[in-house]
Amino acid sequence: MNIPKTSYPRIVIIGGGFAGVSLAKKLSKQEVQVVLLDKNNYHTFQPLLYQVSTGGLEPDSIAYPIRKILKDFPNFHFRLANVDAIDTASNKVKTNIGDLKFDYLVVASGSKTNYFGNKEIEKHSMAMKTIPQSLNLRSLILENFEEALLTSDLNERNALMNFLIVGGGPTGVELAGALAEIKKGILPKDYPDLDTRLAQINIIQSSGCLLKGMSDKASAKAEDFLEKLGVHVWKNIRVTGYDGETVTTNSDLTFKAATVVWAAGVKGATIKGLDASDFVNRGNRLLVNTFSQIKEFNHIFAIGDVASMVTETCPHGHPMMAQPAIQQGDLLGDNILKLIENKPMIPFEYNDKGSMATVGRNKAVVDLPSFNFQGIFAWFVWMFIHLFFLIGFRNRMVVFVNWVYNYVRFDREARLIIRPFKNKVKD
Amino acid sequence: MNIPKTSYPRIVIIGGGFAGVSLAKKLSKQEVQVVLLDKNNYHTFQPLLYQVSTGGLEPDSIAYPIRKILKDFPNFHFRLANVDAIDTASNKVKTNIGDLKFDYLVVASGSKTNYFGNKEIEKHSMAMKTIPQSLNLRSLILENFEEALLTSDLNERNALMNFLIVGGGPTGVELAGALAEIKKGILPKDYPDLDTRLAQINIIQSSGCLLKGMSDKASAKAEDFLEKLGVHVWKNIRVTGYDGETVTTNSDLTFKAATVVWAAGVKGATIKGLDASDFVNRGNRLLVNTFSQIKEFNHIFAIGDVASMVTETCPHGHPMMAQPAIQQGDLLGDNILKLIENKPMIPFEYNDKGSMATVGRNKAVVDLPSFNFQGIFAWFVWMFIHLFFLIGFRNRMVVFVNWVYNYVRFDREARLIIRPFKNKVKD
Repeated sequence: MNIPKTSYPRIVIIGGGFAGVSLAKKLSKQEVQVVLLDKNNYHTFQPLLYQVSTGGLEPDSIAYPIRKILKDFPNFHFRLANVDAIDTASNKVKTNIGDLKFDYLVVASGSKTNYFGNKEIEKHSMAMKTIPQSLNLRSLILENFEEALLTSDLNERNALMNFLIVGGGPTGVELAGALAEIKKGILPKDYPDLDTRLAQINIIQSSGCLLKGMSDKASAKAEDFLEKLGVHVWKNIRVTGYDGETVTTNSDLTFKAATVVWAAGVKGATIKGLDASDFVNRGNRLLVNTFSQIKEFNHIFAIGDVASMVTETCPHGHPMMAQPAIQQGDLLGDNILKLIENKPMIPFEYNDKGSMATVGRNKAVVDLPSFNFQGIFAWFVWMFIHLFFLIGFRNRMVVFVNWVYNYVRFDREARLIIRPFKNKVKD
Repeated sequence: MNIPKTSYPRIVIIGGGFAGVSLAKKLSKQEVQVVLLDKNNYHTFQPLLYQVSTGGLEPDSIAYPIRKILKDFPNFHFRLANVDAIDTASNKVKTNIGDLKFDYLVVASGSKTNYFGNKEIEKHSMAMKTIPQSLNLRSLILENFEEALLTSDLNERNALMNFLIVGGGPTGVELAGALAEIKKGILPKDYPDLDTRLAQINIIQSSGCLLKGMSDKASAKAEDFLEKLGVHVWKNIRVTGYDGETVTTNSDLTFKAATVVWAAGVKGATIKGLDASDFVNRGNRLLVNTFSQIKEFNHIFAIGDVASMVTETCPHGHPMMAQPAIQQGDLLGDNILKLIENKPMIPFEYNDKGSMATVGRNKAVVDLPSFNFQGIFAWFVWMFIHLFFLIGFRNRMVVFVNWVYNYVRFDREARLIIRPFKNKVKD
């Protein structure tokens, strides 16, 4: 790969998500060469993908060109590349655009949808982990209503208007809430010829509560909000199959649905060469020590979703969310510099700032370390925090304009079906 | 097709562009049933497509859901459909979702790219008539720079950074100007490893002036603006071939270029059943009388780009632009109602309000019927008019925020490569 040679040590970062970008920012002012590899030329603000899927936001406003984030740093290099493998013997990353030697390697490749080995579900359900996937889901939702208009077969029409979300985590809850608002605010106006009251939104959770990991109060309130919006919440039910028409579960319950969104799990996006079973923990995540070093290596690290840093308080690693990723990236920046200077590194400690989820207009739940709250104030806090963490002034402005408009007008205007064919987009 | 039956006469409109939407708006409050068919669920504001291609705007902000434009009208029905043919004998439109009987039919199917029969150019060049095509062009431009970084072959690198725009109409001129600004403002920051001064932007015009149809002064000034921005303007040269690598012309001149945008012509998008040679005029447009009626039919009309209304002042029909389309749609709304009531129809007279094109920051040309002007004031007029004609308050706000940001920061942030594969998107 064509990267300028310097006397600085070369740090290669795989992945431009929250972890990779946070690390690159920290390192780029230092006397090191940083090469960031990603298969996209943009950073995705994943927490707002569900708004792209439901027509509330344009994809461009929640993505940011990686080159632009780090444009002022002369020792920073970005390359658009698919990483095929890591050769730990020769310290090389193998990619579709050639090999790259590294002095230090940081795997920040994130996570991908986990179908738990069910090929049938993988084939027929929709995921929502990337921008192309979110746009695809948006198109499918709208196409289904157009098709529902055309059929005179009542069963088919019901299936086309039946939405099933598998997984009651923040993604599932936020998507279900947004779909319920579309049903209420947009469908009756857009489809006067269709009895849109027949549209059903279902959310299925395998355990006994939504938003596992948040407070009991948040969990109960989210369920309450969803039910007020008309969402059917199914708990203690596990989806076992979906053939494109019928969803089967571990109970007698079955659903006929044209749209199934799989938000029931993610797994680490490990890379060949570091995927042997002794590197990997539950959820296919790379086991790391408190310095983010991968077992047996001094100079190879993993951070973010793909890393599983097992500590007493986190026996399965930190939650796969933005906060731990950002904090790990930030600390690792300091630690790599210390390592280069032969100084002792600082162990990572997760500072849990809390978590939150939004269900709909004026309806959100927020857990802070010391207290929790729900409702309209939580909703404003959620919006403020998300605007604050978005990268780029223009993105913040555009998202803000959209949110104000959507709030005032009870509307979501980004309703373009732009995929040319009905094809799926994978992770 | 599943359309409610009423006692009102049914008017079927094919196409939701400027002409079709203008007509539908006029008719929707009347005692007629209006069915609008389009292959997209959105109306595209074509004059700003070049800004989507060059990262200045999101696609959602220049498109608008057709259902939403006409949501308050109970007698209006939209169907997402591809029209396959028109059966004038039985008064039926044949589509991929079934047949539809009409009492009155209005063909407003617009225009598509005209390659003048050159299959090779059609295969290898990019068009910019639709939103998917514009997004595809955006991706290609950005991908080329990523690839230019990787190659050590100087000829290949030059070809990857060589942009050729065929056609010196408004589309070509505006795209060339926008690319020149990207070269100047964004490339050096985004690609510090690349000598971006080597990027070339060429515009080729077969006749002796750019912006044919506008005033000589506008034409000369646009050329002057482009040259100041570093664009190579080639006049009196006709492109004869492009095999994906080399562009040949009717002179000795050849170009090695990875990106060729074909903006050299459009032709009417006629439909089977009405495409016999005796219906069709120069540019594959449907010959209509001054009431927009297609030859020999009393109840079948054509408006907008696809219609060629030959008058003394317009021997080849009106210009294929938004203004005549909007005016024809508007008048036809009145005329169909008159026809239903057996009143005499009013012949169409084109009210030419002027034309304009923008080359770049502070650089535009405006021709009004009585006078013309160029430069910064023209540029503000151009922006104001385009904001005014955009459909939807949210779109206007989002476009305005983007323009202010781009102006103040000399930037264009919508730079996502979102197409999954390098595939072409056709009309």
